[in-house]
Amino acid sequence: MFATHWRRYAAALCGLTLAILGGLHATSATQAQADPLPTWNDGPNKKAILDFVAAVTAKGGADFVPVADRIATFDNDGTLWCEKPLIQGAFMLERFKLLLPKNPAWKLEEPFKAILAKDREYLANAGEEELVKFYLATQANLSKDDFQANAAKFFATAKHPKFNVVYKELTYPPMVELIHFLQANGFQTFICSGGDVDFMRVVSREIYNIPVENVIGSSLVYDVRDQDGKLTLFRSAKLHFFNDKIDKPKGIWLHIGKRPIFAAGNVRSGGDIAMLRFTQSGKGRSLQLMVNHDDDVREFAYAEKDRASLNASETHGFHVVSMKNDWKKIFAFEK
Amino acid sequence: MFATHWRRYAAALCGLTLAILGGLHATSATQAQADPLPTWNDGPNKKAILDFVAAVTAKGGADFVPVADRIATFDNDGTLWCEKPLIQGAFMLERFKLLLPKNPAWKLEEPFKAILAKDREYLANAGEEELVKFYLATQANLSKDDFQANAAKFFATAKHPKFNVVYKELTYPPMVELIHFLQANGFQTFICSGGDVDFMRVVSREIYNIPVENVIGSSLVYDVRDQDGKLTLFRSAKLHFFNDKIDKPKGIWLHIGKRPIFAAGNVRSGGDIAMLRFTQSGKGRSLQLMVNHDDDVREFAYAEKDRASLNASETHGFHVVSMKNDWKKIFAFEK
Repeated sequence: MFATHWRRYAAALCGLTLAILGGLHATSATQAQADPLPTWNDGPNKKAILDFVAAVTAKGGADFVPVADRIATFDNDGTLWCEKPLIQGAFMLERFKLLLPKNPAWKLEEPFKAILAKDREYLANAGEEELVKFYLATQANLSKDDFQANAAKFFATAKHPKFNVVYKELTYPPMVELIHFLQANGFQTFICSGGDVDFMRVVSREIYNIPVENVIGSSLVYDVRDQDGKLTLFRSAKLHFFNDKIDKPKGIWLHIGKRPIFAAGNVRSGGDIAMLRFTQSGKGRSLQLMVNHDDDVREFAYAEKDRASLNASETHGFHVVSMKNDWKKIFAFEK
Repeated sequence: MFATHWRRYAAALCGLTLAILGGLHATSATQAQADPLPTWNDGPNKKAILDFVAAVTAKGGADFVPVADRIATFDNDGTLWCEKPLIQGAFMLERFKLLLPKNPAWKLEEPFKAILAKDREYLANAGEEELVKFYLATQANLSKDDFQANAAKFFATAKHPKFNVVYKELTYPPMVELIHFLQANGFQTFICSGGDVDFMRVVSREIYNIPVENVIGSSLVYDVRDQDGKLTLFRSAKLHFFNDKIDKPKGIWLHIGKRPIFAAGNVRSGGDIAMLRFTQSGKGRSLQLMVNHDDDVREFAYAEKDRASLNASETHGFHVVSMKNDWKKIFAFEK
C-alpha cells in the first residue's frame, strides 16, 4: 500500500514535470519553428508534404490516420539514390567481368555480347527479358551470405564514374530527410524497388534508416541447403518475383497487407505509376510524389520517350518534384 | 536561453522523479514477482523460455541480442490455435458447398469427390497437390477485398463442431501469452504458416496482437485490376508461394531478411522442422519449441506416423511442449 501510494505520488510529480517540459518545448518550438525538410525549397511540393503530414497526424481531424495505417513506400533507383548508372547494374557488371573467363560462350550471346561491345543502341532497346537474363547470370548461383558479402565489398569500394564517390554517397538528402520526417510522424517506411532485395538490404538501414524487414524488391528462388548441420539459403538462377511496374502493388500487398497512404517514385521507365496509383486507390487522404530528373548540372537530365510518368502525374494528380527547383541539394557532397 | 535553462531544470526534475518511480517499481517487482507466463506450469520448458529471454535481453551479457535482431516466428495451425479441423479448411469447405451448384463437374473429380463422400481414407493420404487444388478452387477467383470480407464473416459466425465456439476462441492462451511476453521484451513477432496470408491477416491483430505486416503465409498470384479508376487486387487461381516445410525458411528470409532467434511449431506433418532448424542455424543463442498435441481430454491427442517432428526435436534439441503437462489452460473458455 505504501509503495503504491508513493508510486502514484511520483507518477503525478513526473506528469507535472512532463507538462512543464511540454509547455516549454511548445514555447521553444513556436520560437524556433525548426524546418523538418531543410534541403527542400519552399514551394507547392514542400507545402503539399507538410500539409499532408499535418492532416493525417491531426487527432480528431477529418483526415486523421492511426499510426498502424501510416504506411509509406519509396521506389529506390532514381527516387532515393542516383540511377545513372543503375547502382546494382554497376555491381552486376563487376561480377560479369569476374565470371567472363569461365563463361566464354557469353561473348557470342545477347545481351552479354552487347554489354561487352558497349552497344548502346542494343542496350537502350533491351527490355525486361534481357535485364533478367543479366541478373540471373551475375547475381545467382551463390549463397545468400556470399552474395551479401560481395555486395558489402562493392559498396565499400566501387566508385561512381562521374562523381568519383562510393555509391552509398549518391543518396538524395531531401528524400532521406523526408523518410526521417515521416518516421518521426509515426509512419512505417518501406522501400519498394525493382532492385534485388538482398542487395538493397546490405545498406538500407545505414543510408536510409529503413530496416531490412521493410525492404520489398525483386528476388530469386532460394534453395535451402543443409551444410554441416546448418540450414543455409542459396540463390538459384530462377526468378521468383520481379518487383516493377504493375507488379509493385502485388509486392506491397504480399509484404505489408495494407494500402500505403504515401508513395514516391520517379520518371524514367514508367515503373512507379502503378505503385502511386495503388496508393491513391484507397479511401482516405494520400500523397504521391513523382521525382523528375531535370538537373543536368548537379545530376543528370533525362526523360521518358513516351512521357508516361509525367502524363500519369497530370491525370492522377501526382506531385512532380523538380530536382532542379525543389531541392537545395541533390547530393550531400555538394558544396 | 531562459527557456533552455528551465527545460534543463525540468528534465533534471523529471529524471529524479523517474528514478524514484523506478526504485519503487523495482521494490514492487521484488515483492510481487509477477509471472509473465501464468498459464504455463513450472517445469523445464517454462524455465527454458524465461532463461532464454533473460539471456538475450541482458545488456552486457554473453548472449545479448540487440532489439533489431530479436525476431520470433510462430507457426499458426496447431501452434497458436487448434488445427482439428484446419480452420481455413472449414472456411474452404463452407465456400466449396456454396460453389458446388455452379460446378457440377466437381462431383466426379478428386479431391472434391472424396470431400463430398467424406472419404477419410483418401483424404488421410492426400498430399500437397490435392490440398492446393482445393485451395485454388475455393479461395481464388475473387477480389482480395471480397475474400477478406468473406473470411471476416466466417470468423464472426462459423463454430467449431466439437467445442461449439467461434474459431477465434480456439487460440491457445499460453502461446498468446508467450507472444505478448516476447513483444514486451523487444521482440518482433511474426506468424509463418502454410495458411493463406490474406486469411490470417483478418484476425492476426485481434487474436494475437500480430500486425498484418508480420504475417507470412501461402499466397496466390494477384492480378492488378483497374476498376473505376482505382487499382484493386484480384486473387487469381494460380499459386504464388506455398509456405510450408522446407519453404518456410525461404518465406522468412524474403519477408524479414533476418534469421529468427526463436521459433515455435507443432507436431503433425513435419511442417515446422525446417523453420526450427533454420532458426537454430545462426551464430548466437536461440530457442525452439515443438508443441505436442497430447491432451485428448481438453483438446485432441494425435501423432505423426513417421514421428519426424519428435525425432528432429531429439536430434536438434528443440523443446517439446506437452499441452497436457505444460499448459494450465489450452483454451480460454475452459473452466
